[in-house]
Amino acid sequence: MIGSVAHTAELLRSVDQAVILTHRRPDGDTAGSAGALCLALRALGKQAYVAENPEITRRYAGLIAPYYPPENWTPQYVIAVDCAAPDMIFSAAGELAQRVDMVIDHHASNTGFGRQNDLVIGWRASCAEIVHDLIAALELELTVDMARGIYVGASTDTGCFKYSNTTPETHLVAAHCLRTGLDGGEINRALFETKSRARYAIERMMFSDMQFYMDGKVAVAVITREAKESTGADWDDLDAIAGIPRQIEGVEAGFTLTELKDGSTKISARTTKEVDAAAICGQLGGGGHVRAAGATVDCDTQEAIRRILAATERVYRGETA
Amino acid sequence: MIGSVAHTAELLRSVDQAVILTHRRPDGDTAGSAGALCLALRALGKQAYVAENPEITRRYAGLIAPYYPPENWTPQYVIAVDCAAPDMIFSAAGELAQRVDMVIDHHASNTGFGRQNDLVIGWRASCAEIVHDLIAALELELTVDMARGIYVGASTDTGCFKYSNTTPETHLVAAHCLRTGLDGGEINRALFETKSRARYAIERMMFSDMQFYMDGKVAVAVITREAKESTGADWDDLDAIAGIPRQIEGVEAGFTLTELKDGSTKISARTTKEVDAAAICGQLGGGGHVRAAGATVDCDTQEAIRRILAATERVYRGETA
Repeated sequence: MIGSVAHTAELLRSVDQAVILTHRRPDGDTAGSAGALCLALRALGKQAYVAENPEITRRYAGLIAPYYPPENWTPQYVIAVDCAAPDMIFSAAGELAQRVDMVIDHHASNTGFGRQNDLVIGWRASCAEIVHDLIAALELELTVDMARGIYVGASTDTGCFKYSNTTPETHLVAAHCLRTGLDGGEINRALFETKSRARYAIERMMFSDMQFYMDGKVAVAVITREAKESTGADWDDLDAIAGIPRQIEGVEAGFTLTELKDGSTKISARTTKEVDAAAICGQLGGGGHVRAAGATVDCDTQEAIRRILAATERVYRGETA
Repeated sequence: MIGSVAHTAELLRSVDQAVILTHRRPDGDTAGSAGALCLALRALGKQAYVAENPEITRRYAGLIAPYYPPENWTPQYVIAVDCAAPDMIFSAAGELAQRVDMVIDHHASNTGFGRQNDLVIGWRASCAEIVHDLIAALELELTVDMARGIYVGASTDTGCFKYSNTTPETHLVAAHCLRTGLDGGEINRALFETKSRARYAIERMMFSDMQFYMDGKVAVAVITREAKESTGADWDDLDAIAGIPRQIEGVEAGFTLTELKDGSTKISARTTKEVDAAAICGQLGGGGHVRAAGATVDCDTQEAIRRILAATERVYRGETA
């Protein structure tokens, strides 16, 4: 942990105006944290905006778009939320990414790049939970609009409170958010229970063509270029799709292969605790975490499957670290 | 609300030995509530068991099977958990179902059938949350094994804290459970992220053959007898499967049709707030709630679809109450 909530709250009180930056390929946590923090600063009487992130998808646009600054407005103080490093900040931020004054984040790898202050709490499941604590430390009333951003941040980063990163404190934050009258069920239905027609079509193809190997311990699904283009799937549609093969009972290593335009193949590996995904992807020129890793290989999907199976068998035989 | 937690806790203190009854087609809430309450009574020094429910599935067996009574044990005091009425109690309970001393439940429709006491709190998302409050009122330490039952009850009845019935208090209960060191992520992966091969096969067929009507506002999936038998799907495998057609973007009324052995068709309707599922199923001889209803019709699935579409169109035209 770097910095304290109380100290950061004091610094925020002394700021007159600020812009908030989100990260590349913005998700619910960076967008929700930014929107809620912006509202908190405004509740303190500050002039605050969220910088326009052109990569925002329709799913999360409502959390930040109402707070985009007017044209020709010049920010003085720059706050980055949920950004582990300056190069994580969305590219259109330009020089603002190089002069961040305050960092608020939950990535343990964040070594701090704020010119004035860093608040990094690595054990928190979401950045939004830290914003929640700041709002409490600022003695502001949590409004339903602040709660929406915080709830979306916490729920999307934890798979709706499902993943192992969910802590008791995540649930306490959710309880506070729902107490404002926020309709969590309606939010979750949109975020977690609604499949776009493109997503539905892609899943249908994945399910139909999934291949099983090694007595059902390995499952491989392929998203062809043709499938992606014919369905018009965008990043929202493909969100968390790599988790699908591993969901099937008995599967310890699930791979989702995506055909790229240049003929190479993107591999996403999701494993149970029995198998080290990073050790598999490491052999394929990639890397990642023990349960979620990836690689890009310069071959078609059939050859990629052969390489994946060879690498996976080596990991099962204990031939890699 | 009938009865108070404090009064019920006092009555439990005065009981020497008790058996706990669960409901038909036992789910996570009745099983989790029973297991946690049994452990609480034992922590008070009582002799307590959960009656063996032959309908329990592998998914929830671990929550109650360790607490089955020895042969020839005769229960004195009978407690029913999560049972809205005596005929909801699992049938093998026999005469025990007719002499329930204490009712602990969260179904608002429960009018109380306990000979000594009823504790019915209809606004609670799960019965397990009421058991949690009883454990607190009894000033018992919440152990990790009690917490497992309570957490499973609360999470399964709320779709892992996703549905609109989740309250701030549900999250507070979850926070307390996780504080015992319970691995919520591991539990949720088994409950919510793992598909059996049979489930996978059934979903694949549903996805492949789903039909859309009325500009995509209506989706119909059919589970044929052949599909069910060839996959060997049981109730665990079919859990919540009726929610799938409605998940697709734009779908306001999703129907899952199951071919029954006698040639009739079971209809499960799940709708968004735009459409009254009970009004549709009421026309088909069934009923239910506004967003979740059902009916069984004495015809094959093709004729069932015709009847469903006619009934749905009438509801859209406002021709039913």
